[in-house]
Amino acid sequence: MNIRIQDVIHALAAQIGEIPNSVDRLIAGNPLSEVKGIVVAFMATRRVLEQARIWGANLVVTHEGVFYSHRETGETCSDHESVHADKKRFIEDSGIAIYRLHDSLHRASPDGIMEGLIQALDWQEHKIEHFPAASVVHLPASTVGVVAEHVKQRLGLATLRLAGDLAMPCRRVGLLVGYRGGIEHSVPLFEKHNVDLVAYGEGPEWETPEYVRDAIEIGRRQALLVLGHLESEQPGMRLLADRLGVLFPSVPVRFCPVESVFKAV
Amino acid sequence: MNIRIQDVIHALAAQIGEIPNSVDRLIAGNPLSEVKGIVVAFMATRRVLEQARIWGANLVVTHEGVFYSHRETGETCSDHESVHADKKRFIEDSGIAIYRLHDSLHRASPDGIMEGLIQALDWQEHKIEHFPAASVVHLPASTVGVVAEHVKQRLGLATLRLAGDLAMPCRRVGLLVGYRGGIEHSVPLFEKHNVDLVAYGEGPEWETPEYVRDAIEIGRRQALLVLGHLESEQPGMRLLADRLGVLFPSVPVRFCPVESVFKAV
Repeated sequence: MNIRIQDVIHALAAQIGEIPNSVDRLIAGNPLSEVKGIVVAFMATRRVLEQARIWGANLVVTHEGVFYSHRETGETCSDHESVHADKKRFIEDSGIAIYRLHDSLHRASPDGIMEGLIQALDWQEHKIEHFPAASVVHLPASTVGVVAEHVKQRLGLATLRLAGDLAMPCRRVGLLVGYRGGIEHSVPLFEKHNVDLVAYGEGPEWETPEYVRDAIEIGRRQALLVLGHLESEQPGMRLLADRLGVLFPSVPVRFCPVESVFKAV
Repeated sequence: MNIRIQDVIHALAAQIGEIPNSVDRLIAGNPLSEVKGIVVAFMATRRVLEQARIWGANLVVTHEGVFYSHRETGETCSDHESVHADKKRFIEDSGIAIYRLHDSLHRASPDGIMEGLIQALDWQEHKIEHFPAASVVHLPASTVGVVAEHVKQRLGLATLRLAGDLAMPCRRVGLLVGYRGGIEHSVPLFEKHNVDLVAYGEGPEWETPEYVRDAIEIGRRQALLVLGHLESEQPGMRLLADRLGVLFPSVPVRFCPVESVFKAV
């Protein structure tokens, strides 16, 4: 039986139902087309789209948008010479369909992106408390430095950013994926759930980092690790690729990793 | 003649006039109190406030808020044990007045924070084009690596984050201070003003960094340096301290530097 793009979308979004103002949508392509291959990625970068074409895949499932903004207003960029316009032409010429799967994944229980991060960190056997926007992992007695080294090794990262002390004892870690680094998420983890360490993807620098700085100044034992947005969410898309492969065994499903966009210099 | 707090506020905000929805305000203290000393800082951290008390200063001029958010909603935090509440008590007990000077500085022409950054980088002798949210500096022929090294040395930073290639030729640099790293600011610099390199304080990681990644992938010569929010704005507050010292020669005015909150690990 042929699998159509709308069958894949239905399988991806079905459990969650309608989400008001969701960014999840078919950005390009015809929902009735037959799926020849699926590529799953954190973001449909130019290189991911080129790789999909090389692999003969005609559906890319992306977590973040294609045109460098959450609501993708830049898609309407009128300048023919722009990077936006060049990408738009490439997508049209390639005939590749692109489906953005963002809100549905985060609304799953537990959050599908969080699940992927916890598996990538090999922490799934520890006691874990899941909350709508965060998870708390209870680790054996350790230090921030040991946890940071583990995170780097498991996620294949060269550098993390730390506010706090590597030698600080650490047992309870609060995880926040993506852009959930604001104080509305981190402060309850520290003050209500008594985590020692928060590890988040990305957040405003004047919020949680400065809160942690002041907390340390008055003698609290708290620390913050910043993983990077992509770095915190990409494992969730790898997990999604595995699950799509099980759901559609007749279709080639490949995960396409995206490199960290920054290097420390 | 005694200088009162309201005299300092008037001198700081006078040139700009009323700004709708401005965050600039007297966060603590009595505008009629006599000023015994002024401390200027990027942010009124606990350590900055303690230093002000040690110096006998009773007015702190801060660029960012005191309670870890732009609009400072956390100030109303009700938990007596919280880091917020502890800081609020410290401020009340110390009797230190705190004035936030944010929007007025950015609305000056040129932006007072941008001026400080350009002076700190020792680029004020080059040709500079000022726009409301950005400035473009025309440097002698160089490379991204040479510019990055210069920025690190002049600002005293251990690490920068780079998207792009250290060896890329670089002449025109677009500067964006604070949280102006979004594509609405960076893309016009690249596509309209033909900068080679954008250097910003902070911005959403899925916006400009991913735009630059795609631009490089299709052969454009573009690069992005991320300085950090504090790191991009602190020099502007140092410049402000110098200017306040000239305006009020009878009052001790000190700049209190705030260390980078992150270290790379």
